[in-house]
Amino acid sequence: MTMLDPAAPQTGSLVPTLPGHWYTDPAIFAAEQERIVEAGWVCVALAADLDAPGAYRTVQVGRESVVVVKGRDKAVRAFFNVCRHRGAQLCVEPAGQVRNKLQCPYHAWTYDLTGKLIAAPNLTEMPDVDRFANGLAAVAVREWIGYVWVCVAPEPPSFEDEVVGAVVTRLGDVESIDHYGVENLRLARRIGYEVQANWKLIVENFMECYHCATIHPELTEVLPEFADGYAAQYYVGHGAEFGSGVEGFTVDGSAGHARIPGVSADQDRRYFAITIRPGVFVNLVPDHVIVHRMTPLAPDRTLVECDWLFLPEVVESGADVDRSVELFHRVNSQDFAACERTQPAMSSRVYANGGNLVPSEHHIAEFHHWVQSRLA
Amino acid sequence: MTMLDPAAPQTGSLVPTLPGHWYTDPAIFAAEQERIVEAGWVCVALAADLDAPGAYRTVQVGRESVVVVKGRDKAVRAFFNVCRHRGAQLCVEPAGQVRNKLQCPYHAWTYDLTGKLIAAPNLTEMPDVDRFANGLAAVAVREWIGYVWVCVAPEPPSFEDEVVGAVVTRLGDVESIDHYGVENLRLARRIGYEVQANWKLIVENFMECYHCATIHPELTEVLPEFADGYAAQYYVGHGAEFGSGVEGFTVDGSAGHARIPGVSADQDRRYFAITIRPGVFVNLVPDHVIVHRMTPLAPDRTLVECDWLFLPEVVESGADVDRSVELFHRVNSQDFAACERTQPAMSSRVYANGGNLVPSEHHIAEFHHWVQSRLA
Amino acid sequence: MTMLDPAAPQTGSLVPTLPGHWYTDPAIFAAEQERIVEAGWVCVALAADLDAPGAYRTVQVGRESVVVVKGRDKAVRAFFNVCRHRGAQLCVEPAGQVRNKLQCPYHAWTYDLTGKLIAAPNLTEMPDVDRFANGLAAVAVREWIGYVWVCVAPEPPSFEDEVVGAVVTRLGDVESIDHYGVENLRLARRIGYEVQANWKLIVENFMECYHCATIHPELTEVLPEFADGYAAQYYVGHGAEFGSGVEGFTVDGSAGHARIPGVSADQDRRYFAITIRPGVFVNLVPDHVIVHRMTPLAPDRTLVECDWLFLPEVVESGADVDRSVELFHRVNSQDFAACERTQPAMSSRVYANGGNLVPSEHHIAEFHHWVQSRLA
Repeated sequence: MTMLDPAAPQTGSLVPTLPGHWYTDPAIFAAEQERIVEAGWVCVALAADLDAPGAYRTVQVGRESVVVVKGRDKAVRAFFNVCRHRGAQLCVEPAGQVRNKLQCPYHAWTYDLTGKLIAAPNLTEMPDVDRFANGLAAVAVREWIGYVWVCVAPEPPSFEDEVVGAVVTRLGDVESIDHYGVENLRLARRIGYEVQANWKLIVENFMECYHCATIHPELTEVLPEFADGYAAQYYVGHGAEFGSGVEGFTVDGSAGHARIPGVSADQDRRYFAITIRPGVFVNLVPDHVIVHRMTPLAPDRTLVECDWLFLPEVVESGADVDRSVELFHRVNSQDFAACERTQPAMSSRVYANGGNLVPSEHHIAEFHHWVQSRLA
Repeated sequence: MTMLDPAAPQTGSLVPTLPGHWYTDPAIFAAEQERIVEAGWVCVALAADLDAPGAYRTVQVGRESVVVVKGRDKAVRAFFNVCRHRGAQLCVEPAGQVRNKLQCPYHAWTYDLTGKLIAAPNLTEMPDVDRFANGLAAVAVREWIGYVWVCVAPEPPSFEDEVVGAVVTRLGDVESIDHYGVENLRLARRIGYEVQANWKLIVENFMECYHCATIHPELTEVLPEFADGYAAQYYVGHGAEFGSGVEGFTVDGSAGHARIPGVSADQDRRYFAITIRPGVFVNLVPDHVIVHRMTPLAPDRTLVECDWLFLPEVVESGADVDRSVELFHRVNSQDFAACERTQPAMSSRVYANGGNLVPSEHHIAEFHHWVQSRLA
Repeated sequence: MTMLDPAAPQTGSLVPTLPGHWYTDPAIFAAEQERIVEAGWVCVALAADLDAPGAYRTVQVGRESVVVVKGRDKAVRAFFNVCRHRGAQLCVEPAGQVRNKLQCPYHAWTYDLTGKLIAAPNLTEMPDVDRFANGLAAVAVREWIGYVWVCVAPEPPSFEDEVVGAVVTRLGDVESIDHYGVENLRLARRIGYEVQANWKLIVENFMECYHCATIHPELTEVLPEFADGYAAQYYVGHGAEFGSGVEGFTVDGSAGHARIPGVSADQDRRYFAITIRPGVFVNLVPDHVIVHRMTPLAPDRTLVECDWLFLPEVVESGADVDRSVELFHRVNSQDFAACERTQPAMSSRVYANGGNLVPSEHHIAEFHHWVQSRLA
């Protein structure tokens, strides 16, 4: 096994975290929104939800509202949710269906599904108005592992480097996630959590397992090695192994559902966790995939939406997925309670220079450097 | 017909609005409160409400609380609602009646209705305390068209230039509004709207009719020319004509009430709209007058109070004014919903340089210049 | 009788208060939290509440959460409520009982009741981690007049100067308060008030009695000299005398309870009020003691907790203390309503340079100088 960051100090020493004000300062939060969330790729919707031409989703990316819509040509496009005339929002419902155009309900400026301005009152008397230049402002869009990802930056970074690269860094190759065919799975459950904590506390929590023995009794029962405090994410390609008596990734270790066909023998009976910065966690187990998506709302408030995806035949059969869902729902609840308990100390004088990372948390320092470099 | 601003470009080109942050920035909002609202004349109360000596109204002018009170001499005066001793508010009820003094309920400093300090505990032992210098701080006050207007600025601008002048600029002369004898009308209905939008979006909305065909079906039925998108306010002295089958300015075009006696033949069957910056809209129709008064509460929140005024005999007779009121109540609701839908885009990157004014909205640019010049 | 500040002007002139923005500015409020509340001694709990080893209270001191805990050695200690590992709060309940350690519920770092780090997962593999340097951060603590006082500053000022000194300045000597044996009394009633006013308005209100005749009818009935407007606090050692027909310090002047044994003859039938800056008021009457403790929450919001303390035998006998409690509960309610009515004027242009102190309030100017000197 290779460690993710072999340069990280591995002695018994403590390494400082970010200073406390990085978790509370509105100016830092605004800079993160601008230079991290709005500068990168954000996972905003299930591709399957945009099933028919004209289907749309209204989503939030940092401080921007974005409309994601399926075209007549079946291509998915995304636009700033801002009429080019006087700014009214084109769509206010979280989801909907139009025929072949987006029309502003204020002055009836009308755009086709490629964003081109196609009609407006008295438009024929305005020969200078270019239909493309005054079309909707486009947002970069990609589909991957069954999700729609968008980037509102004028010059999006490489999706392969930023998103796919994060998976490769963690798993060693992209084939390892391909085996799960996530894009073929179906949503069985979605739970939203509004967490009273800074988004970085949630990332840090997900990256380490030093807390597992203390707060995750069910999870450490299923994955006994987690009781030792070393996160699976510490090593390239490593997945935590199920305990010997454990039959499935469920709240009581009972059997789960049919294994996803592509999952390899060395992936079976293992749990893999991947952090795709800044706001996506992907969890792979043999019979399902769990995807967390975070939306930072304020320095001390974050929305986390968690999807549980199973094989279509499992969902269609009406099989009971409650015990599967319950395991990570408990993990989520335990983790978010811990994050909420940590947030208040971020403004304490005692935390002005930050807290301490123990050796099994040293890889979190690299996340801190990443955040700081993005804001530099 | 003369255009209000003949210098405005009339080609088919688009003209930019204010940049988006002018509708969201707390610093700009504070500057507007200081240099526009608190520097100008604000319409705060119906003169008829201050019917007897000692009757008072507690009103908000920008960030200041003001008491408007009728004196024993029948003169209306206004004062900052701040005791000169330690600052307690003299009045906290929105309206009330005193006999011949205003007494602070904290330490009993007592002022007559001209503001002079007339009593306080141990005041006789404080010979240095000047009764006038330590009297209530006066606020400039005027009565016009049946309303009380106040100005909290130390040196109020000319009421004739700022308020009466706005009406003259719009109608061509002051006699045109005098015909309606607004000061003789009586309040039949008042509706308050708390709008989740910047006050300037509400002004802009009132100034143009490019949206009328899209969101005001009832209004364009009564005033067919509004369907063409040109606001009555675009031309000096122009009033929009009722449609041929329309009998009155009512939600269904049915007959309204007795025509106001002074209304001239060329004012009959017409609707005139006047914007008195920053916060008053006056709407004139043959049988009633509608007055909007705006109070900006926050960058994204504005209170609008709308009065419907009819002839005293109409109000006294108990005549049904519902269909009259319903027309503009619907217009208000339609307009404010549009403004609320526009507010979120003001903080979008796409709106950083503002939106676009079409030719029939070009006169709004002059309003933007006015706002900017006040804050310069 | 000696006046507290003989240098204060005693003519009939008016002396200015602090400028209005000192009561509204978030930057000044933050500076007060840092340089007054977090720099001084704060009264946080009844000593009697920490009765057994392991009993703890979680309290707020300025912007810091603090755990006050009784040790196995019966000593009371206080610590920042911040785990030294990653900052999670050790205690979130306002009060509780542990056995012999404080354990962080996030990663199980464990401290003994002296704050020393005694256990943590994998701690034996971290030889560099000093158990004392990584122990809980200590907060200075003192017990006096039956209360626990803490100071979160790195170098606490002298408790004798700041706290005991305030009592001596007011009463002339420390024996005068010792007579009441406050540490032997027992809590009979506690009422919390959330006041919508700046904490300094509450201090100013407590320091003067110019308002007593206007808003405290019950209190001036019991203490007739208060109707003249001179606060007892104006003179060193002076206590306001009960009215001739008054039997006790109760809402209707009826008899109270058994006199506290140590109370001297010249203290009997008198009310003494002491302000211990920034946030404690002590009220002494022959049969009970009332202690106010303030926690500033925001520039315009303050929590006041008021304790009524009686002899143990009074509390244990189940005697009716309602009429005693009701008197100062009414005074509190009257005072806090006045403060809330004053807060809005603090942001008025008229109060930009402050209000006016009459001669009998001139000693409040010294409080203003104290606040300003702390922030200088």
